[in-house]
Amino acid sequence: MTLDTPSERECIELLAGQVLGRVAVVIEGQARVFPVNYVLDGGDIVFRTDAGTKLDAANAGAVVTFEVDHSDPLYHTGWSVMATGQLQAITQPEELRRMRGLPVRAWGREGRQWVRMPIGSISGRRITREPTIG
Amino acid sequence: MTLDTPSERECIELLAGQVLGRVAVVIEGQARVFPVNYVLDGGDIVFRTDAGTKLDAANAGAVVTFEVDHSDPLYHTGWSVMATGQLQAITQPEELRRMRGLPVRAWGREGRQWVRMPIGSISGRRITREPTIG
Repeated sequence: MTLDTPSERECIELLAGQVLGRVAVVIEGQARVFPVNYVLDGGDIVFRTDAGTKLDAANAGAVVTFEVDHSDPLYHTGWSVMATGQLQAITQPEELRRMRGLPVRAWGREGRQWVRMPIGSISGRRITREPTIG
Repeated sequence: MTLDTPSERECIELLAGQVLGRVAVVIEGQARVFPVNYVLDGGDIVFRTDAGTKLDAANAGAVVTFEVDHSDPLYHTGWSVMATGQLQAITQPEELRRMRGLPVRAWGREGRQWVRMPIGSISGRRITREPTIG
């Protein structure tokens, strides 16, 4: 088993292939971590939410952490990607109309609010099996 | 689809039924989120790690957030549980011997260090389908 660090481009590709991630918002020094369904839109992470911690963070323009991981329990391989960026609540009617056409289901509740996170930094870890010989 | 909040006891039961969670450590106001394989040991979350952010947090006795979620993409149901607690590096030889008998695989690398997180607080969210009539 070897551990390597995918490039930024590979991290984006890994993100693009999944639909469930987690947003970590820091409140009074403590992380609050919420699963969200997301999609990449023009290189930005976009997800839906409702009134609460994530929407407050978006309205405040908070810099948050977005995490996605994938594990293969059979082969004990996997990867994780962590991105940071400033949340933005999407409020423009035209952009909202376009968002509503994106294939993103709310993780819970209605998900009436749309939030965008342009990726500021991104890094990852990947566990692969060592190549077998012969 | 309805959203409810499982009781503390139900949250523990949900945790007990999974093996992959995420530890969120706050560093300079920003969350760092890492997947870990874990097990419940006497009500505490236990996982393996190596030198790095998580072990530093354990050695410092940092209060961190632990998140586990589960989604059923077919039925659009799922749950997430968030626990907070103070990390403790396990260093006692006898306890380490016992830990090595636990069914916890390191998520990456060797996982030579064992870390315990007694659960300080725990809460969750659960999405269920509305009962169908008839």
